[in-house]
Formats: sequence, C-alpha cells, structure tokens
Amino acid sequence: MRPTYLVLRPPRQGFYPLMMGLCSAALHFSQRFFLMKFPKLPSLLIALLGALTGQCVQADPKSVILIIGDGFDDVHVTMGRNYLSGQSGTLVLDTMPFRGAVQVETVDDNGTPIYVADSANTATTLATGVVTRIGRVGKDRNDESVVTVLEAAAAAGYKTGIVSTASVTDATPASFAAHVGIRACENPVAIRGGEKYGVTFPGCPKDLEENGGAGSIAEQLAEAQVDVILGGGMSHFAAQHESNPTALDKAIASGVTVLTSATDLDSAYEGRVIGLFSDDTMPVKWQGSDGRSAEDIERSWLNLAYEMIGSITAPETIACMDNPAFAAMPTLDAMTRFAINHLNQESEKGFFLTIESASIDKKSHVRDPCGSIGEIAQLEQALAAALEYAESHPDTLIMVTADHAQAAQIVPDPTLYTGLPIPVFSPGKVARIETPEGSIMRINYATNNIRSEEHTGANVPLFANKEGSEVLTPFMRQREIYQSMMQYLEL
Amino acid sequence: MRPTYLVLRPPRQGFYPLMMGLCSAALHFSQRFFLMKFPKLPSLLIALLGALTGQCVQADPKSVILIIGDGFDDVHVTMGRNYLSGQSGTLVLDTMPFRGAVQVETVDDNGTPIYVADSANTATTLATGVVTRIGRVGKDRNDESVVTVLEAAAAAGYKTGIVSTASVTDATPASFAAHVGIRACENPVAIRGGEKYGVTFPGCPKDLEENGGAGSIAEQLAEAQVDVILGGGMSHFAAQHESNPTALDKAIASGVTVLTSATDLDSAYEGRVIGLFSDDTMPVKWQGSDGRSAEDIERSWLNLAYEMIGSITAPETIACMDNPAFAAMPTLDAMTRFAINHLNQESEKGFFLTIESASIDKKSHVRDPCGSIGEIAQLEQALAAALEYAESHPDTLIMVTADHAQAAQIVPDPTLYTGLPIPVFSPGKVARIETPEGSIMRINYATNNIRSEEHTGANVPLFANKEGSEVLTPFMRQREIYQSMMQYLEL
Repeated sequence: MRPTYLVLRPPRQGFYPLMMGLCSAALHFSQRFFLMKFPKLPSLLIALLGALTGQCVQADPKSVILIIGDGFDDVHVTMGRNYLSGQSGTLVLDTMPFRGAVQVETVDDNGTPIYVADSANTATTLATGVVTRIGRVGKDRNDESVVTVLEAAAAAGYKTGIVSTASVTDATPASFAAHVGIRACENPVAIRGGEKYGVTFPGCPKDLEENGGAGSIAEQLAEAQVDVILGGGMSHFAAQHESNPTALDKAIASGVTVLTSATDLDSAYEGRVIGLFSDDTMPVKWQGSDGRSAEDIERSWLNLAYEMIGSITAPETIACMDNPAFAAMPTLDAMTRFAINHLNQESEKGFFLTIESASIDKKSHVRDPCGSIGEIAQLEQALAAALEYAESHPDTLIMVTADHAQAAQIVPDPTLYTGLPIPVFSPGKVARIETPEGSIMRINYATNNIRSEEHTGANVPLFANKEGSEVLTPFMRQREIYQSMMQYLEL
Repeated sequence: MRPTYLVLRPPRQGFYPLMMGLCSAALHFSQRFFLMKFPKLPSLLIALLGALTGQCVQADPKSVILIIGDGFDDVHVTMGRNYLSGQSGTLVLDTMPFRGAVQVETVDDNGTPIYVADSANTATTLATGVVTRIGRVGKDRNDESVVTVLEAAAAAGYKTGIVSTASVTDATPASFAAHVGIRACENPVAIRGGEKYGVTFPGCPKDLEENGGAGSIAEQLAEAQVDVILGGGMSHFAAQHESNPTALDKAIASGVTVLTSATDLDSAYEGRVIGLFSDDTMPVKWQGSDGRSAEDIERSWLNLAYEMIGSITAPETIACMDNPAFAAMPTLDAMTRFAINHLNQESEKGFFLTIESASIDKKSHVRDPCGSIGEIAQLEQALAAALEYAESHPDTLIMVTADHAQAAQIVPDPTLYTGLPIPVFSPGKVARIETPEGSIMRINYATNNIRSEEHTGANVPLFANKEGSEVLTPFMRQREIYQSMMQYLEL
C-alpha cells in the first residue's frame, strides 16, 4: 500500500508564487510535526488541518511515463547491452529495481488466439486493456472505439503527452489517442484506401468524417486533448483530400503551436504543442558503415550446386557510425525532456506521457542492426531523462516495455560447428557488427525472403522504477499494464 | 535480511525419534513463547535457552534447488505457455514471485567476449562463478579446475544431487561435479579423442588418469561426493578402455547403489545412488505426429526459378503426441521427487540439488518443437514438485533459469504480409503446431543449413520462489547466480 497522507509542495502556478511558497513551507513543517507526533493520523484529517491553516494544500501529483521500445524483446535488449555497455556491462535499463515479463495477446476476427502480433493491436492493448486483432488502432476486434488510458487521464485533469521517433500517426503512438479500423488510415488521403508496406488496403470507411467517423489518425490527433505530441509525420498532417482542410489546418485552427525544427524545442510554449520534425519516421541515429545492413552469405558455385561441398564466405564486418540525416533531428532525449517540462509546467495534477522508441523494430524489419542499436541508445537516454525527473518527483511511475518481439537473433561468429568438414551458413541474411569491446556480434535475420522481416512471438520484458512494485507483478499480460497505469493514476 | 532466530523441528534421524519429537515440540512452544514476549531477543540467546532446556536444538536446514532449462530462453518459455496453458494462461513458472533476467558471459581463449555460449561454459559459470570458454566443464579458460557450488556444499556437510534428462555426463549436469577440458570427454574411451556431434576432437590428455588427471566425466561422477545422480548415460558408465575398470565398476566398488529402471525409484535407499535410465540422452515425452519436425517450405518450380513468382506451400500442421519410447523412462517429476526425498531423508543440514531439463535445447537443435514443449511440460512438473517440498520446508531457495538462448522463433502463421502479391516464406525450416486452444503456432528454425541449429545469444530468464528476494536482483550475470547460491547456503 502506498502511504496515503498528503505531501505539500509549492504549487507550480499562481498569482503569488512567493506567498504560496511561504504558505506551503509553513504547512509542510506543520504537517511534518503532526505526522511525527501522530504517525497514524488519517490522511484526511491531515489535509483538513492543512486546509484550515493555510488553504494551499495540494496532493502530490502522480504521473506515469510509459516508454515503449518497439520490437524491444530480450534479444534486442541483449544486442543493445553487448554493443553499448559490453557483454559484462549494465544498461540504464538494467539498473531498474523492477523487472518482469509480459505476455502479448492477439486475436483474429473471431477471437481465436494468434501468436504473433503487430504494433497496432499491442499498443491498443497497452493503451486500452482490450485484446484486439492485428491492425486495429484504439479499437476492439469489432471495430469499436475503446477509451485509452491517455484519454481517461486527460478527462480526469491530468496533462498528457505522446512522443515517438516514428510518425506520430504510426500505430504505436496513435493507439493512445486515436481510433481507426486499420493502422494505415493515417491521413485524409490514406483513410480512403491505398497501399502501405506494399500491401493494398481498403481504407477505413467507418472512420470517414462524412460517414460520422472521427476521421484519419492525423485529423484525430490534430484535435485530440493531448497537451504535447512530438515525433515525425508532417506528410500525414499535410496530406490533403480534395480541398478539405488538412490535419495541420485543423491543429492550427484549434490553437495548437506547431513546431517543425529541433531548435524549436529550446523554448517553452503555453497550451497544446505538436512537433513534427520529419515527413514520416524520423531518421535514426546510427547506420552501418557504407550504409550496409545484413547480407547473404556468399556461396561458391560448387556450394550452390550442392551445399555440403564448396566454400562459403561470411560478409565483411560492419562498424556502426553516425547517420548524417539524424543531425537535423531532435534526439529522443530532447523530445522527452521537452515533453516532461511542458507537462510538468502545465500540470497541477500530474501527467501521462508515452514515449516510443520506434526504430528498434523498423530497423530490425530492414535487417539493419546498427540502426536498431542506435535507437536503443536513444531509448536509454530518454529513460535516463525520465529517471532524472523522477528523482525530484518521486510519485512518477516509469515503465519500459516492448509491444512485441522482433526478428533478429544473435548467432555464433563463426558457427558452433567449426569442426565440421562441411560449409555451415545461415539461410537468411547476416550482419557481423564490430563491438567497441573488440569482438564481433553476428546478427541473423531469417524469418522470410522479402524486404521486411516478420515480427516474432516471445513474451517481452518489463522494467520499472520502484513505483512499479505498487502496481506490477513479475508476470503480466499486456492488458494488465493498462490496468496498472489506471490503478496508479487512480482512474 | 533473513530472520536469524532458529526454528526448531523434530530431527529426521536418531535413536529415539519419539523422545526427540516430544523434546522438539516442547522447545518449539517455549521458543515461540520467548519470541512473542521478547521479539528482539538475539537469536544466539534463543538458541542458548533452547539448548539449556532441551539439547535438541537444530538449525532449520537450508537447501537450494536449481532447475536449469537447457536453451530455455523467453521464446521457449512463450512456446511452452502458448501450448501448455494457452496464450492467456499461466505456467507454474509464471506464478513464481521473483523474475529477472540473466546475462550470459562467454570468453575465448584470450578472454575476449564472445556473444553466443554453449552449455558447458554456461553451466560451469553457474556452478563455479567463473566465466570460461566454450566446451569447458568445471574448468576455467586456462583448463584449470574450479571448485563448484555443489562441491563446496558437500564439503560443508550439505547433501548434494544432480538430476538430468540428458546423460548425466553431458555438459550441464557434469559441470557441477566434474572437471574436464572438453565436454566430449564423457567416458574413458572418449577422453582419448574421437568424434562428437560429427566434430572430431582431440580428447582431454591433461585429464587422463595416467597423466595425473581425474579421468573422464563418468569416472569422476562415479566417485564424486554426490549423494544422488539420476538421468541417462549408461553407455558412458559402461564404456571400457582396454581392460581398465569402467565408471560403473568404480561406482559399485565405492558403494554406490546403481538404479537402471523407472520402478527402482519407488523404493528408498541409503548412501550414494546413481540412476542411469538410458544409454545417453533420455527419450523425450512428446513427439510430432508421424515423427515430424520442422520442414522446408515447398516451392513450385517457377518459384525456385525466381522467388518473386510461382507458389509456395507451408508444411501441414503437426499435432504433439506421446513418444512411445518415453513410457519406460522415469519422468523428470519422479526423478525430482526421488532426489528430494533421498536428500531430505539423509540430510541434517539441507542440500544442494541441480535439475536439468535438457531436451528443450536438444529438440530445438533438431527442429522438433513438440519434443521441446513436452520437455517444458516435464520442467513444469519438476518445478511443481520442488515448490511442494518448499511448502513444508520454507528455507528452500528454488530457482529456474536457462544456460543460454536457443534457435527457435515463433513467427506469424501465415506471414504478416499476406496482402503482398508475391510468395513470402521462411528461408529456414518451419513447423506448424496445432495448439490445444485451436490455433496454429508456427515455429521457425533458420540459424544454419545443417542437421543441428546454432545456439543464440539473448539474456535468459530467472524465476525464483520468495527466498530469491534475499539473494537475487532483477538483473544478474550468470556468475552472480553462483554467488547467490553460495550466499544463501552461507558458504
């Protein structure tokens, strides 16, 4: 049980901050006196005493920061650790006092379990507690909208925020504040059908405004009660259907401050803020040397004729290096700090903030381990920023989890079977990453034969700061993460 | 901190069990009286009071049961959960109050980190706290023997046991009580060199008895101070070099009771027991229907000519069913119960027992998911037996972990990219398992092209009962598991 007595602190806003500060200080000491003398005095009585003597009693604001590493399963956590901290090193994640595992649940149209998820259905489960089918954003499997934890928090007076390194209209961020039948309905053009990831889709007729729906994801976000939204996705906010207003038009009309450059985050703003720093997914921090990612094993003609003979050659090693396109982007750290400051500055009650590190998954899809690892480095920095905030705001629940597992595997370099007199090689694509500690980490991508790997189906890790012990258990289902956040925020 | 006061319980052996029982009961109540009246009375004083009044004071024995699921990473845990309990179900494992992650460490001959391990080096790390190179059993990377937690426990008067579904001479069980340079040196013939898993190896000249060594693994186990050893491996105990005594001869000569049939476990025995129930690895509980495991995707001639066209056919589904060869075997549950009873009956001080569920890994190597899942079912039953013991013996630390991650991946069935107009298929081998809840779980094995998959490199899960919170942290390295066991047993 958390202690229920009230902690007094100077209100963050007000006409007479000095007076309020003095008043709060006086109350603080009087409350401490009462608590020392009568430690079991009920919280209500304490509050009443405080209110009678000073009228500036304020409950300590509670906040939740949920960091989602997209595709950040235990394989990717280990890839990140091996590269960023060394095999025997410790990530910021690894210092978190709570760790557990989360079972991912997905169903098909009939409610039958299926064992591999996508980001839409899993983010929807995290956001709403509902187990749904692949592709749904903020909706159950029957295409009905479900209220999200962010919306419930906003309705209860909490400030709210969404940060992502993807387009803010992408499935994971969108699932917290938008509701569409298919994730691809990101903007007023796409909602009428089209192609996403090379796959034709029918659009979301039910969600069209002319059919009484709430419109595309971008249109919904433009007007949603979310105090700060930061990430990529300008193309979706600028997309125009016929001569209708764009999502950007709608945002500006509803009083949103729109930011478009990394330096815009150096200032503070009042009211709702939407920052869109790239057309779609933001460029990632790192890339492989010469832009290389995983490649086929090179096989001799003899080996191609019969794979038990001939020779094979593994790809040359890859060094991870800065991606020049990242230089113009705000870091996930900078977006996180801006969002926390904005929410904290505007908040009397606390806030709900979700932060997605999107490209762990996106770069794993395209077999680019340096891209994924650079994104894990970004997640680590964002987590450090959140933990720093929680040092001075202890009633902040910080969680890190993943939406689903993802394709990469760490495999031996070379094979475990070097003694065999036959060529041993992966049937998929491999990248041999040079790690700072002087070894080679070989990553295998072999779930399919096309441009984009499949997701995979393992349970995912859950990390939390000490507040987690109040509402989390070592084994949870994804829908129970939603419940734990609702419980923590007393919603 | 664990409470340090002594709990009195009737000694398990003695000439006058009735008298001792009465004496203990009297002490028990007098101690409770003292503790109620003087809760902060130092433990030493309590013990002294007890001793003065009854002379039958006895410390509560502390025991450790370490269950190792070989290759039991989060993918395999999830495979097991999906099949055995359903996607939304709960394994016995999932009810454990402590859960964490364990980083696996491996080095090469020069001490440089490598990112994928084998069972020998990781079991050695768990057993000794030393990070070593692949293939070593109970030895550091320089081929020097290191004292194991089992040996330290035995030396301090604890009873000790080893149970495995592999040959007891296999790397994981062997690493707790034997010391050889290369894991293949399992018997007096193999120690002179030969072939294992199709790979020629030089043997372990340093470990030969004629060179002053301790002999092969089987010979060492035959004479080791281990109270109970159960598993497969008769062929290694029967292997004879020239006319020298076999390991079995040595065991019998040193007074060991040798068991060879499942029904032998229905009786109790005094002194050291070695049970060898199969020639090598024990047959597993389940197999795929028609003996099937993962298979290649069938590709049309057109698709073989150019993979963007033509058609592909996924393998038919597989049902998991009983393996007839398993019928003659003792279950892991039966071996666990026998071992616990044997150690408990013989023990004044408590015991150290390690239990390996070996074929999660072995069946993943040969791409047989039904084999792996049946073995996980066995692990679950063994864990339940251990937890049942701990109910009446609360000072028992029960941990479940894995030695290393392993090749299987759960992938979508069918692909996430069904909308694409091109054939999408795994380049590896796939098995489509019919789950009891009426779905298909597709498992992908694609780390290499030979008969046996590679290990993989993710951190592995750690589960523990409530005793774990005293000595474990949410993130650990494998060597720290050793330290935690030593600490728990006060060694």
